[in-house]
Amino acid sequence: MKKFRVAIAGASGYAGAELVRLAAAHPAYELTAVTSEKSAGQSVASVFPSLTGVVSHTFEALAPHALAERADAVFLALPHTKSQEPVALCRKAGKLVVDLSADYRLKDVAAYEQWYQTPHAYPQLLQEAVYGLPELHRSAIAKAGLVASPGCYPTAAILQLAPLCKQGWLQPDSIVIDAKSGISGAGRSPALPYHFPEAHESLEPYKIGQHRHIPEIEQELGIVGGRTAAITVAFTPHLVPMNRGILCTAYCRLTKDVSLNELRALYRDFYKGERFIRLFEETMPNPRYIKGSNYCDIGIYQDRRAGWVVTVAAVDNLVKGAAGQAIQAMNLMMGLPEDTGLTAPGSYP
Amino acid sequence: MKKFRVAIAGASGYAGAELVRLAAAHPAYELTAVTSEKSAGQSVASVFPSLTGVVSHTFEALAPHALAERADAVFLALPHTKSQEPVALCRKAGKLVVDLSADYRLKDVAAYEQWYQTPHAYPQLLQEAVYGLPELHRSAIAKAGLVASPGCYPTAAILQLAPLCKQGWLQPDSIVIDAKSGISGAGRSPALPYHFPEAHESLEPYKIGQHRHIPEIEQELGIVGGRTAAITVAFTPHLVPMNRGILCTAYCRLTKDVSLNELRALYRDFYKGERFIRLFEETMPNPRYIKGSNYCDIGIYQDRRAGWVVTVAAVDNLVKGAAGQAIQAMNLMMGLPEDTGLTAPGSYP
Amino acid sequence: MKKFRVAIAGASGYAGAELVRLAAAHPAYELTAVTSEKSAGQSVASVFPSLTGVVSHTFEALAPHALAERADAVFLALPHTKSQEPVALCRKAGKLVVDLSADYRLKDVAAYEQWYQTPHAYPQLLQEAVYGLPELHRSAIAKAGLVASPGCYPTAAILQLAPLCKQGWLQPDSIVIDAKSGISGAGRSPALPYHFPEAHESLEPYKIGQHRHIPEIEQELGIVGGRTAAITVAFTPHLVPMNRGILCTAYCRLTKDVSLNELRALYRDFYKGERFIRLFEETMPNPRYIKGSNYCDIGIYQDRRAGWVVTVAAVDNLVKGAAGQAIQAMNLMMGLPEDTGLTAPGSYP
Amino acid sequence: MKKFRVAIAGASGYAGAELVRLAAAHPAYELTAVTSEKSAGQSVASVFPSLTGVVSHTFEALAPHALAERADAVFLALPHTKSQEPVALCRKAGKLVVDLSADYRLKDVAAYEQWYQTPHAYPQLLQEAVYGLPELHRSAIAKAGLVASPGCYPTAAILQLAPLCKQGWLQPDSIVIDAKSGISGAGRSPALPYHFPEAHESLEPYKIGQHRHIPEIEQELGIVGGRTAAITVAFTPHLVPMNRGILCTAYCRLTKDVSLNELRALYRDFYKGERFIRLFEETMPNPRYIKGSNYCDIGIYQDRRAGWVVTVAAVDNLVKGAAGQAIQAMNLMMGLPEDTGLTAPGSYP
Repeated sequence: MKKFRVAIAGASGYAGAELVRLAAAHPAYELTAVTSEKSAGQSVASVFPSLTGVVSHTFEALAPHALAERADAVFLALPHTKSQEPVALCRKAGKLVVDLSADYRLKDVAAYEQWYQTPHAYPQLLQEAVYGLPELHRSAIAKAGLVASPGCYPTAAILQLAPLCKQGWLQPDSIVIDAKSGISGAGRSPALPYHFPEAHESLEPYKIGQHRHIPEIEQELGIVGGRTAAITVAFTPHLVPMNRGILCTAYCRLTKDVSLNELRALYRDFYKGERFIRLFEETMPNPRYIKGSNYCDIGIYQDRRAGWVVTVAAVDNLVKGAAGQAIQAMNLMMGLPEDTGLTAPGSYP
Repeated sequence: MKKFRVAIAGASGYAGAELVRLAAAHPAYELTAVTSEKSAGQSVASVFPSLTGVVSHTFEALAPHALAERADAVFLALPHTKSQEPVALCRKAGKLVVDLSADYRLKDVAAYEQWYQTPHAYPQLLQEAVYGLPELHRSAIAKAGLVASPGCYPTAAILQLAPLCKQGWLQPDSIVIDAKSGISGAGRSPALPYHFPEAHESLEPYKIGQHRHIPEIEQELGIVGGRTAAITVAFTPHLVPMNRGILCTAYCRLTKDVSLNELRALYRDFYKGERFIRLFEETMPNPRYIKGSNYCDIGIYQDRRAGWVVTVAAVDNLVKGAAGQAIQAMNLMMGLPEDTGLTAPGSYP
Repeated sequence: MKKFRVAIAGASGYAGAELVRLAAAHPAYELTAVTSEKSAGQSVASVFPSLTGVVSHTFEALAPHALAERADAVFLALPHTKSQEPVALCRKAGKLVVDLSADYRLKDVAAYEQWYQTPHAYPQLLQEAVYGLPELHRSAIAKAGLVASPGCYPTAAILQLAPLCKQGWLQPDSIVIDAKSGISGAGRSPALPYHFPEAHESLEPYKIGQHRHIPEIEQELGIVGGRTAAITVAFTPHLVPMNRGILCTAYCRLTKDVSLNELRALYRDFYKGERFIRLFEETMPNPRYIKGSNYCDIGIYQDRRAGWVVTVAAVDNLVKGAAGQAIQAMNLMMGLPEDTGLTAPGSYP
Repeated sequence: MKKFRVAIAGASGYAGAELVRLAAAHPAYELTAVTSEKSAGQSVASVFPSLTGVVSHTFEALAPHALAERADAVFLALPHTKSQEPVALCRKAGKLVVDLSADYRLKDVAAYEQWYQTPHAYPQLLQEAVYGLPELHRSAIAKAGLVASPGCYPTAAILQLAPLCKQGWLQPDSIVIDAKSGISGAGRSPALPYHFPEAHESLEPYKIGQHRHIPEIEQELGIVGGRTAAITVAFTPHLVPMNRGILCTAYCRLTKDVSLNELRALYRDFYKGERFIRLFEETMPNPRYIKGSNYCDIGIYQDRRAGWVVTVAAVDNLVKGAAGQAIQAMNLMMGLPEDTGLTAPGSYP
């Protein structure tokens, strides 16, 4: 298989480590550079002992120009607002870029500036960027030079509601998304809420109605629904005492009376042939089934008595919610089979 | 302090063990009998080594008549549908009874028979029973001979929505309750979903729209709201990998425009003087703050952008959600201060 | 009950919070001051929301002279090496002092200075201090003005080996102590090894043969054994993914052939009448049975085939391993029943 | 790559599921049959939803003759004592066999019959079987028809002590092995000790000096040490609240004075070129670094003060401790590169 030279910027967080792990096993990648400001000069294996014997790289400081010379494709897993410029430089150098930050996800510059409290220096590039959810934007991704890889919560939330939006069955002001994430979603920097004795035997909502993933969810559900009505969601994320995994439980009301069989048929049809979508019926989606894999498991349920449809989606926040999805998009950009390097099933238990 | 002779029936489950633990430390109780069909003949300490040196009782089989002779007050923590007759016999013998099963919670016999798939043999006694939520029914409990102690989920769900219902601010068809429970809520009988490797690093909804606690929630919210409109809730419980604790996140729309300050003032007023209700603002309710205690912590938040009010409540499912609340009611029935034996703060971390 | 005015210094860590929790429920304490450098000016309830409605104190900075004026008895839970002077000042003011740091535990000044890399400024006071393990030094504690409360690991390690040492049955160079602790033992300051995703699904030894609790264990086993031979132990602590609890598994060879029955009789005799020691046989000691309680559970087992005796002890590192034991000693110093304020059984599950 | 037809018997436990997961991704395997008595007739994906979309097999009942016809190689993950006959039948049919049970691990029939309380019906086959630890028996495995794959604890215990045994530096009666395992090591059948609320916030030794893995460890350490002295180990396993992973902490005394550098040089030399052994120094071996991978991480430490050498080893009990090691041996038997299908690094965190 032809090899692409690949660089990963911002690889000392959990999503970055997962990118390195998957890249090391990717048959079309030659990993040429791994950057981290914090760990520059240290070997990757000393920071992530799990990768001992797997990669022999040393973290280097990020120098976008130099990086671009050594890579055909670049993944950036930098903090939000820090990715704007490196992305622009890599694109200017003609590299394929997948950005895992939020910096190129929102089409509406004003929304970006409001939710992230930072001006956007590259509004034109923002318009060129493609939102990297292959199940919704496959052909655009395949032609893109820059892909903005979705957030972990939006991946689950959008995929579980897209068929209903597309079909026009969803009452646009009825959506409640109650999301739960394992603690790795909070990143690798120690802080009191993630200190083991605080996070264990613990369960807590945070940023009720204020999480930055909200505009991403509303943008994409609006697009898939043809923007016939603005979508506004109530969104509450929670921290759950587990390492990996997101579960989103979404509640909505429909515009018409539809049976559970019709609902499930809609989803089967919508996701027909999708390599990484699994539709569950008897079995409930549960993060335990997707650890380390790129699947998004979705279930559709109906509470006819109370008049609600309840959908449930599970993803591994570091794979389909981050590194795996980024590679899935890059595979499309490179013209590779979409699941190259992503075929490992989940580890269980 | 005057001592009451107290018996606990069905004490080999987690709620039963918690009743024994709290009863052993209760200054007004003389524990005279502890029953369990499964563990009859074994010492309580051999079944619950945590109680070694605390109680010297031996489990006996349940014989309601004999039990009634040896006790002034009886707690029953039997499985649903198994409590009907023992409760009736204890009441006939004139004992104070708190029943922790669902058998005497629903005022509507038809609803009971539908949700529990069993006829009710004592419909008249059902009418006499008082729903044991002291914050809503204090004076009735104090006069009652039979109290039906609420389920764990309803305790949190009702307490966090009651002020809005009472005030008439709540749109009755807008309520979504996303509930999360630690695994002790599933009881002490081993089964695959609760097997450690299945339940750990795992998170799963169950009985979507079908959980038996739904009619209890709807009944009580209807009562507190003056039944001006029937309440119907979307209710989804989830199993979360922790031992103890329930967190309920409830979403609703209001009938009028109210500020967050007004909402919080409403709650402060409604729960003024309540010994076991704590209203949180900056701090989010979290099971980690109430482990082993009888508190129900409540927070009220507002998502003005999307137009939802979000309330959050946390209880220890085995204390305020079961044993502690039962003792709180019994204290009222015995004419004792309501917090007798329930003053221990939560264990943290 | 007569009230003592009690102050707690250094109360913003986990042991300090546990002291406040237990002190708040202690029938003979009037809590007059709670100090923390880090949290000075904040209410205790804002730092520890579990104590909302339980205590109304505000953290203040530590000023030993002022503190001594407002208290009859002082608990200090300061970091090692920071406790020397405040203890000396409180003692000079004639207060009853229980120090939870290591500063007054080691009788040998040279050993202290070697293991803690700090000179000791109060060597005479060190000689007056009594090691606060009531099961070994009850009468000395009752007469003491200063008690040095044992470390969490030493509590379990010493109590499980003391009978064998006293009896002279233990080969002094054969002892291996493999200790395991929940993460609260590492304190409340966030750091990478205790970050939830690092500590969960994780298990790790640390400070092999170098932990500062080693000289404490060797000192006390030497004393109880009559110093006939110096005791040297191999000691390896491990971090285990749970919040609370220590389990010590100790291996040793005996100087003579003794049956398991004789071993267990020795322990029963040694610990006869001890309120907080429970001897287990069929049941294995396990932290799950002692959470929140002051018990130390001990089991004695024999591997005759391989020629080893194996003892197992479990304590709650924050109660019998810290705050509870400190109160137990203070009760003796105050002339109170030894279990005053410590009667709560463990919370289970 | 040439494909071998592969069958897996007893695949409804955790080790079996892991075999299916790894086999599905193995480039030289065509998975032809998967058996389970308990789940016969059900699809693998319905029993293990994590394998949905990965394998399309249905569990069948075990019929060794029929199985042998459809496979070139057979893995058996049956309960101990149930594997004797199926193994013999598969061998008679000329198939390559790796048995994951204990039935062919002990060379001494009497020892087998004593520890497993069952007669051995195939003592001759027992002599032909090769103990499947490639690091010690690589060439014998490559020529073998039947390999007995080691237990999870022995894998860690033997690998961490083998260099010292071989070198003759180890005092044969000084060995203490304190082993800790995640709960998946207890299998997939629900029972009270593994019920989540019992196993969580819990830590417990079991079968002290009586675990069936003891004779395996003593046999192999005796062989590698040249049987110059019988090896007897004190062995205590513990259950730790995590899903996967074993950590063994071994203590021993040496026959001569050796520096830490010499010890580490010995290990580097002994394990030179080993694909799946990683020697750690600063970093402690920890199950978190090997989840899902076939590595055994080993660290050597010295407590010169007390005169002990402490070695620490970590394996994933389901991979290097079961399914991965079985495939590693089968790769040798098939003439494939030893790491075929086993190159995935561990998932972290």
